[in-house]
Amino acid sequence: MALKKIGVIRTPYKWKAPRQPVEDGECLLEVYPEFQEGLKGLETFRYIYVLFWMDRVEDYSLETEPPWAEGIKVGVFASRSPRRPNPIGLSVVRLYAVEGNRLRTSSIDAIDGTPLLDIKPYVKYLDSKEDANLGWAEDLSDREHLILHLRGIPHDY
Amino acid sequence: MALKKIGVIRTPYKWKAPRQPVEDGECLLEVYPEFQEGLKGLETFRYIYVLFWMDRVEDYSLETEPPWAEGIKVGVFASRSPRRPNPIGLSVVRLYAVEGNRLRTSSIDAIDGTPLLDIKPYVKYLDSKEDANLGWAEDLSDREHLILHLRGIPHDY
Repeated sequence: MALKKIGVIRTPYKWKAPRQPVEDGECLLEVYPEFQEGLKGLETFRYIYVLFWMDRVEDYSLETEPPWAEGIKVGVFASRSPRRPNPIGLSVVRLYAVEGNRLRTSSIDAIDGTPLLDIKPYVKYLDSKEDANLGWAEDLSDREHLILHLRGIPHDY
Repeated sequence: MALKKIGVIRTPYKWKAPRQPVEDGECLLEVYPEFQEGLKGLETFRYIYVLFWMDRVEDYSLETEPPWAEGIKVGVFASRSPRRPNPIGLSVVRLYAVEGNRLRTSSIDAIDGTPLLDIKPYVKYLDSKEDANLGWAEDLSDREHLILHLRGIPHDY
């Protein structure tokens, strides 16, 4: 199970990435030229999955405490914490443009320079589940507020 | 970038997997006991992402021809073909039950015994994009028929 770096993610985040992708802001995916042929037709998709290797993560923890949900402890597989046995990041982002081997996208919750592993089209019907839920976050008091954190939407309170 | 096998996928598919996850049928994820603690709270989610290593895939191809869309050639990153530079499979499946270290889910498009890499909660708002599209499949003639293929829905014609 040997991974190949197919490119690199360029973001404004040098040390600390936001917890979630946010739809304002813009990031860049630089696909190495030897893989550019694989991008043909990608520009027709509104959303894409970006898979990346979170190389700044040093170790994993099976239990995690979401920073915005005090006192809640959940398993790492019930969370999107980066401290996972396999630190593979997965984000759904808007694809704005494909320019040669460079992709302009909405914000990605990754640190600048993060290795890119894969890009997949996000396909209506297959990936968009209208009856999805929020899991353990569904029943928290202060739910509406927490949803802002969960979605990475900036707010003042 | 070294991957850990966190468990194994049990499916009825011994040699050939369906092209997409289908919502009828049932599969099993066996998480190794040393990772079981990481499942805490996962049962509250209706859908999960399953990431797996497609170990039967021998090589990748930057250009691919979807078997159900004759004459169409697209780049591998604009497709869900398993023959990718990093053969990481990604499926959204329904989670039916967590029983100790075993997860009962809807069908997964993976061959029996496939190494499990990660499980992530599929989170409403974050992952469900109602305005997603079908990309290059949007404009094909015979679109409705192709959508059945795309969704992995069995049909007679």
